[in-house]
Amino acid sequence: MTIVVQDVLHGSRLALARLLSQIENSTPAGYTALSELFPHTGQAHLVGVTGSPGTGKSSLVNRLAWHYRHPPEGVPQKRVAIVAVDPSSPFSGGAVLGDRVRMRDLTGDSGVFIRSMASRGSLGGLAAATSGLVQAFDAAGFEIILIETVGAGQAEVEVARLAHTTLVVEAPGLGDDIQAIKAGILEIADILVINKADRPGAEHTERALRGMLQLAHPGRRVFRHHGALETVQPSQPEPTSGESVWLPPIQKTIATEDSGIVELIDQIAKHHQYLHDSGEWEQKTRARLQSEFDDLLHTALVQRWRASVTDERIAHIFEKLAQRQIAPRDAVSALLNGVPR
Amino acid sequence: MTIVVQDVLHGSRLALARLLSQIENSTPAGYTALSELFPHTGQAHLVGVTGSPGTGKSSLVNRLAWHYRHPPEGVPQKRVAIVAVDPSSPFSGGAVLGDRVRMRDLTGDSGVFIRSMASRGSLGGLAAATSGLVQAFDAAGFEIILIETVGAGQAEVEVARLAHTTLVVEAPGLGDDIQAIKAGILEIADILVINKADRPGAEHTERALRGMLQLAHPGRRVFRHHGALETVQPSQPEPTSGESVWLPPIQKTIATEDSGIVELIDQIAKHHQYLHDSGEWEQKTRARLQSEFDDLLHTALVQRWRASVTDERIAHIFEKLAQRQIAPRDAVSALLNGVPR
Repeated sequence: MTIVVQDVLHGSRLALARLLSQIENSTPAGYTALSELFPHTGQAHLVGVTGSPGTGKSSLVNRLAWHYRHPPEGVPQKRVAIVAVDPSSPFSGGAVLGDRVRMRDLTGDSGVFIRSMASRGSLGGLAAATSGLVQAFDAAGFEIILIETVGAGQAEVEVARLAHTTLVVEAPGLGDDIQAIKAGILEIADILVINKADRPGAEHTERALRGMLQLAHPGRRVFRHHGALETVQPSQPEPTSGESVWLPPIQKTIATEDSGIVELIDQIAKHHQYLHDSGEWEQKTRARLQSEFDDLLHTALVQRWRASVTDERIAHIFEKLAQRQIAPRDAVSALLNGVPR
Repeated sequence: MTIVVQDVLHGSRLALARLLSQIENSTPAGYTALSELFPHTGQAHLVGVTGSPGTGKSSLVNRLAWHYRHPPEGVPQKRVAIVAVDPSSPFSGGAVLGDRVRMRDLTGDSGVFIRSMASRGSLGGLAAATSGLVQAFDAAGFEIILIETVGAGQAEVEVARLAHTTLVVEAPGLGDDIQAIKAGILEIADILVINKADRPGAEHTERALRGMLQLAHPGRRVFRHHGALETVQPSQPEPTSGESVWLPPIQKTIATEDSGIVELIDQIAKHHQYLHDSGEWEQKTRARLQSEFDDLLHTALVQRWRASVTDERIAHIFEKLAQRQIAPRDAVSALLNGVPR
């Protein structure tokens, strides 16, 4: 085992920071370390947090981390890692600035580690790098990993797929119907959060979300409620019934006033329990490993094939394809025959 | 050249219908025919039409086809194929019923061919089969191919990627802010259509779309207009300026009253001209061929690899992966070494 991996497993923040950079930069040392760390992963609860800009996601993530570090009496403290992914930013400038603001309450706490990632290339690359960072934090013993992404495009959906529990954050008054409350986002939401719930229009946002939930889960009762910060938790069937389902609850929060955060942590814990009781934790873990394997296999097969064909041959076949002298399927056959079997 | 392909190239509807079934069912004969037809493709204008259920897409597509068949004096008539893709339907029952209704005005016209496809398996399979159908229609000499998809999920985006020109259809009063006007849909829209434009709320829908367009194209002027069926066509810079851009126009229509359809056809023709003048037609065509090649290559590489490894070996390595005794990257290496190099 390499020394950096030993140091990471023994809790060195410096070694961890160095390793995270190697993983982000896809260095051979980073790959080796990930292989060595892998047997130590699988314990952390990965919580995705996504939502449009302006919903106050960062403040919310900050307050969540703070409360995990300062739990009520009798509740064990948890180590928290925050991975902030911004696929829209080609540089990390904004993210780093955000970190400084965010660090204010958490600074000096060795049980918290914050890492920002700006987009540096392909979508697939971003998801793979995020997955690597998360594995490193997991192996290093962080129990809660908050993965924060901006917006809800394909990149965010990819990243959210990493998470066990996905929070979708909305806020009132972000342009109402023009605001893109996307149908797709309900499919990835395990918990819906209305942050800035003291703003005008909160009831309207909640009605809209509840309407969309009813469309997404027809035949299931979505509970109405009153009161600004009340939790809307539909009664879950007993997990032992074999018919266990999770209906995304709607949680109102005001992150800047620290309201609703403890209740949100409670929802996250309930979802964690649900995942274990229903067997979904195990299923999700297997599916994630399978999907990571598939991606790596495809990449490796294409790389190996690419190394076996000359640029000239590819250019020649592609030109024939562009001239429609050869069909795509036959172009593939022609280029595959270049590979020694 | 097989006889069925010769017959298709000579305009036999029966041979075409038979070939389309072979392509849809991925038979070896279908693959062979596609290879033979490929040199005859590349002429058709592929027009994607997508939008939520209830927007009147089918009526709109019907009226478009009718007007292409009955052009104003001096405008050449065009042969029209309609491919109706319904990824949500596991059976073609609904689609077939829809066809009968839709056929009423077009029946008996040998210059129109309608084909419905229900989902029969994976998303990738649907896009690949659609691509095959479109190539067959293209080779058979259909000049306009209308590809109609329901909704705007990932499947529709995949299918829309086939098209040169994508129409996104909205309608007033489909639930306003709860209606999922998705941000992603603006990225694929070349022309926005507000159908059922005589319904209450049309102005509201238009305002919402214009607002979203402004967000999607910041700094560009999106023209305001008044009048129920007026075309909103922002003035395009001269194509020769080298700075040519296409701003999606908003076209109001009432398909059931045949209003706005001629104007919509004019927009589609303008976009066709823009694609040619700007060089995007060529770019899109190359990108589509490249992407089809990539998909086929990946499939072929994985199939060849899969044939070289035993089920037992895969199960063994996957079990080690699930137990976290081996990292995903090392699992791939282990299984790749099973392939003779």
